[in-house]
Amino acid sequence: MRALSRRSARERESLFLVEGPQAVHEVVFHRCDVVKDLYIDAEAASRHTAVLEVARAGGVSIHEVSQEVLAAMCDTKVPQGILAVCRPIDIDLDTVLAAHPKLLLVLTNVRDPGNAGTVIRGADAAGADAVLVSDSSVDIYNPKVVRSTAGSLFHLPIVVGVPIPVLLDRVGHAGLTLLAADGSGESQLADVDLAGPHAWVMGNEAWGLESGVREACDSAVRVPIYGKAESLNLAMAATICLYASAYVQRADPISG
Amino acid sequence: MRALSRRSARERESLFLVEGPQAVHEVVFHRCDVVKDLYIDAEAASRHTAVLEVARAGGVSIHEVSQEVLAAMCDTKVPQGILAVCRPIDIDLDTVLAAHPKLLLVLTNVRDPGNAGTVIRGADAAGADAVLVSDSSVDIYNPKVVRSTAGSLFHLPIVVGVPIPVLLDRVGHAGLTLLAADGSGESQLADVDLAGPHAWVMGNEAWGLESGVREACDSAVRVPIYGKAESLNLAMAATICLYASAYVQRADPISG
Repeated sequence: MRALSRRSARERESLFLVEGPQAVHEVVFHRCDVVKDLYIDAEAASRHTAVLEVARAGGVSIHEVSQEVLAAMCDTKVPQGILAVCRPIDIDLDTVLAAHPKLLLVLTNVRDPGNAGTVIRGADAAGADAVLVSDSSVDIYNPKVVRSTAGSLFHLPIVVGVPIPVLLDRVGHAGLTLLAADGSGESQLADVDLAGPHAWVMGNEAWGLESGVREACDSAVRVPIYGKAESLNLAMAATICLYASAYVQRADPISG
Repeated sequence: MRALSRRSARERESLFLVEGPQAVHEVVFHRCDVVKDLYIDAEAASRHTAVLEVARAGGVSIHEVSQEVLAAMCDTKVPQGILAVCRPIDIDLDTVLAAHPKLLLVLTNVRDPGNAGTVIRGADAAGADAVLVSDSSVDIYNPKVVRSTAGSLFHLPIVVGVPIPVLLDRVGHAGLTLLAADGSGESQLADVDLAGPHAWVMGNEAWGLESGVREACDSAVRVPIYGKAESLNLAMAATICLYASAYVQRADPISG
């Protein structure tokens, strides 16, 4: 079980771990169809009755185990008495594009699990239609990614494993404008038309987007820096861009 | 020296550590007046000639030391050959308010060093006039805070050590509207008048603002959640609020 904290084991078994009350609550309430087993200790079982009820109704196998067994199964240092073993939640790019998305987030070469998770959480909060994670990025089933999405991994469609050139080509052909988020982009966020369907393309936390990716996009957009900071971090930049899109698309502009 | 990674030692000595090329570059170029000593190894000295030149011109004592000595002095596991010992950079609340600020960030009970640093970086990027850190928050001279500001600690005025009731009272009397950032706030970000001078008040990353603080503010404002996420994290919420203010105050609204 513990081996599932390694990517190779997750891929071989086609299973991943969801640890802790909040994440397990979210997967059980939003994607009970992917939950295979739920492991819980006696203390947690007495506290999380609603989760157990929904899981049982959804056909999940529930196993009451000791704290020690649970601790040995977990990636986290402080397991909180509850853990789910789940099947992959990612879906086909075709399915995402068939739903006529208006706002997508594309991640390429994002390597830090905490950043990837936080960005997925931001995309969820901003109401993005899906997140597309290219095959050169961190594994979204990494326990650190799962934790840092704070449940958002189970709230919106996620596509994984598609090479970035294919992602950009398919999304562009589906009629979405490709906006490269880039600190040195030629357009400023406030000057970009965000009303139509579009995808934000975000690159590596340290070195940004590769030039080939930037060139494959329709424009490169920068978040304005009003102070002396050199840049924003990936999660902040992504969230600002996605919220800017949400405000405009939902006809809910920020105004004085 | 290494003791400076503990708050008690920093306060006793009135000194703190700035580690690594980026942070040292920023303090030397923006606040050379507070740099007391600069420690550098031979390899770093050959790469960071501009920093050394500015530091020397600013009267900083420069010490060339071995990699081993530097590693022993540092809080980070991977020291990158350069470290500065600095005097506190915080300034008086009076000085901040005398400059007629239009946009302030007030932090209360923010405990995680990484969050505090990231929020200060966001405030810098959004062009806030100052950050006021109440006495119940993490020490801004904690090495993890310094690192995670990515240099922003030296870019804008920071006030520390003032109790939150005094901060709110003084900022309110200076004519700034106090906006409590609160996930269950009665106003939505897009409906708040952000044109006039105001201060965003942000609370603890887990439990938000204390009710007394929220009540002392003029209104409680929520960032809209368009998807299914329960909330945004502190740094994302702060950055969205501050950018919303910056757009309006700089007459640079996001628009389709």
